Amino acid sequence: MNEIPYKIYLEENEMPTQWYNVRGDMKKKPAPILNPGTLQPVTLEELSAIFCEDLAKQELDDTTRFFDIPEEIRNFYKMYRPSPLVRAYCLEKKLGTPAHIYYKFEGNNTSGSHKLNSAIAQAYYAKKQGLKGVTTETGAGQWGTALSMACSYFDLDCQVYMVKVSYEQKPFRREVMRTYGAQVTPSPSMNTEVGRKINAEFPGTTGSLGCAISEAVEAAVTQEGYRYVLGSVLSQVLLHQSVIGLETKAALDKYGIKADMIIGCAGGGSNLGGLISPFVGEILRGEANYDIIAVEPASCPSLTRGKYAYDFCDTGKVCPLAKMYTLGSGFIPSANHAGGLRYHGMSSVVSELYDQGLITARSVEQTSVFEAAEMFARVEGILPAPESSHAIRVAIDEALKCKETGEEKNIVFGLTGTGYFDMVAYEKFNNGEMSDYIPTDEELAKSLDTLPKVD
Amino acid sequence: MNEIPYKIYLEENEMPTQWYNVRGDMKKKPAPILNPGTLQPVTLEELSAIFCEDLAKQELDDTTRFFDIPEEIRNFYKMYRPSPLVRAYCLEKKLGTPAHIYYKFEGNNTSGSHKLNSAIAQAYYAKKQGLKGVTTETGAGQWGTALSMACSYFDLDCQVYMVKVSYEQKPFRREVMRTYGAQVTPSPSMNTEVGRKINAEFPGTTGSLGCAISEAVEAAVTQEGYRYVLGSVLSQVLLHQSVIGLETKAALDKYGIKADMIIGCAGGGSNLGGLISPFVGEILRGEANYDIIAVEPASCPSLTRGKYAYDFCDTGKVCPLAKMYTLGSGFIPSANHAGGLRYHGMSSVVSELYDQGLITARSVEQTSVFEAAEMFARVEGILPAPESSHAIRVAIDEALKCKETGEEKNIVFGLTGTGYFDMVAYEKFNNGEMSDYIPTDEELAKSLDTLPKVD
Repeated sequence: MNEIPYKIYLEENEMPTQWYNVRGDMKKKPAPILNPGTLQPVTLEELSAIFCEDLAKQELDDTTRFFDIPEEIRNFYKMYRPSPLVRAYCLEKKLGTPAHIYYKFEGNNTSGSHKLNSAIAQAYYAKKQGLKGVTTETGAGQWGTALSMACSYFDLDCQVYMVKVSYEQKPFRREVMRTYGAQVTPSPSMNTEVGRKINAEFPGTTGSLGCAISEAVEAAVTQEGYRYVLGSVLSQVLLHQSVIGLETKAALDKYGIKADMIIGCAGGGSNLGGLISPFVGEILRGEANYDIIAVEPASCPSLTRGKYAYDFCDTGKVCPLAKMYTLGSGFIPSANHAGGLRYHGMSSVVSELYDQGLITARSVEQTSVFEAAEMFARVEGILPAPESSHAIRVAIDEALKCKETGEEKNIVFGLTGTGYFDMVAYEKFNNGEMSDYIPTDEELAKSLDTLPKVD
Repeated sequence: MNEIPYKIYLEENEMPTQWYNVRGDMKKKPAPILNPGTLQPVTLEELSAIFCEDLAKQELDDTTRFFDIPEEIRNFYKMYRPSPLVRAYCLEKKLGTPAHIYYKFEGNNTSGSHKLNSAIAQAYYAKKQGLKGVTTETGAGQWGTALSMACSYFDLDCQVYMVKVSYEQKPFRREVMRTYGAQVTPSPSMNTEVGRKINAEFPGTTGSLGCAISEAVEAAVTQEGYRYVLGSVLSQVLLHQSVIGLETKAALDKYGIKADMIIGCAGGGSNLGGLISPFVGEILRGEANYDIIAVEPASCPSLTRGKYAYDFCDTGKVCPLAKMYTLGSGFIPSANHAGGLRYHGMSSVVSELYDQGLITARSVEQTSVFEAAEMFARVEGILPAPESSHAIRVAIDEALKCKETGEEKNIVFGLTGTGYFDMVAYEKFNNGEMSDYIPTDEELAKSLDTLPKVD
């Protein structure tokens, strides 16, 4: 075996040419998504009124194992992919662990995260359908940035409803999107009926993700030639993100490395789902075994403390219902800087895998996450996103266990993005002003009371 | 010949193991730097009072052609190098040009620029000498960030004097440095004699780079075990940055590509000097020929409108004098967002190459630079730094000339960094509020009147 380099790059001809749909290998499938009006499984026709047709098909297809990646998307991928699988030699040395730590780094593009993998796919199918443009919401701004880049590439109009508090506090994120030609509107706005209503009801409100989703959906269905797109949670998004896991597996295979443990942070579940898909596939087919750990913030613990039930995907209750681990769509996470992990639910695919015991979950507190982030940055050079740092925390914990037991485990984790636009959180940490908060059982019970009656 | 991929990555074993000192191949050498007190060539002993000894030796050595890159530095390089040489297929298509455009992308690390290449070398030699720490100044913040990362890696104390106006307007830059453990002090401060004096003389001043340099130098010479380090202009920095050019040439050679034209932005000259070094070496040895273009802002045109003469490197006049193309150390550039290009002078190596006619220079206006930046971002995905975008502007102009003439030139340019921390400038551009300013002949004549009498 060759010596393992710091960074394993695949050649362009080693890049995946198909996405992998893990549902195709699942014997027990995730429960179908439901029409919020009828509580019946959503039909392709219903879904195609909101989403592009090809994407709606991907969303509903739980049997096809592989989907060809269209050439136009593969060409775009080549501009920032394959992403490197990095051997964390310096972190290993710092920890004094016999474990071998690898991370798949998805931050090497201007959106700063893995979000671009699905954004470009969704923009492509919108263009292919002859649409004028797409609408979406963004909170932290990574998804909005990724979609702006993708739409600019395919010359599509891009309308982003950005939660007003983020719009005001993250002007740089907003300007990146505008540089890529997107229209960025603070939500709630006066553009939509739902926005006007909320503004009238709660004057001076700084908005919420739920409200921004409702505005984006309304904007999509009321404008000719527009559809709504979403950056996480959906099965189609996990399908596109499987490129992360496929590349990771190809890079490990190239050097004859067998992963023992795969760790990813989990908000809506798209990065985690994408990373683990091909490995879970091997487990499902009885070909291999892996310890897979989903890491979530203790402040928003949908897998570790939520309920597996049908729930609304958005606070506005306009999207289909999904069966998932959820804290209730009315759950408001406390101050938590990992904006991308502040989602009340979890992808129905990840939820079902967790329910079947194929993956485990762990929750970690914010302060310990930033300690891990700082240690990682100082030895590995990359300034990680707060979201990604949840996975770093658990990777370090597991490497330290190996130090005690002497095990030479191969630990692989997903480094989903960079923290350049999260310096307000780092500043709090640097100043010792960061705090932890874990919701009480009473608070969770109250929030879970809002679940719709479906089952 | 194989098809040229979007990104040419060298293998780790193809990375340079030596830096190249272009002065070794120059028959007429750059003029020696002078002691500001005696106006005599600086001795190694004098220089070693300010700089680390090994770096002072590199600074004064104009004959040795190659310096081994120490293994510790090569290991650090492996965390973010080799950087990709990217074929700009999408930009070519957008322009409809027969030219082939390549860019060497140095923004794939947390400092966001090429600065890290020299920062890690300077930190290494400081550690090797047994120093406690280093001091420096930073304006825009790229250099300070790079040095913080390098010092954190070698466990060295890092004291950064940050121009007060930047400290206040760029809190994110400041926090990145703090996350890597640096002490960041707004300059002028009350820590140093020169800082206290300036604060007393100009109450409420927001500082200047010249003042920050003076404070950093004073902090270095008055603390036991500290030395001063600088991120550009110096010949040692160009030596370290030669890794950019060596990798570029190796990548081109790997695919049998002969560059016709090499373009880089020029502030202090370190990125440009590093990129072009091995190509200039070939010209000097009569082995090949290239059109080499240095691009500078029209607002700070040291090569195109400056004078080739001895001048102070800093406004505080504490550093050695260098013979260079300069606008006068008292030159204050007008509002110009390319912070890294707002230097009154130019590396003495680049200046001498320019004087010998081995390279040419061109100045471009800010608005046209941002137009190029936006076009590039939208098709190539990467959001470029304003500094780097000067090179993009000229690369596009040259590619459009090829469109007229039908020439299939190979155009290579340096993409030195990313613009994530420059969104205030992009916002101005997006809002149509950006303006151009070119200094008048009278202004330049007045500033050039401040040149010291040496020649």
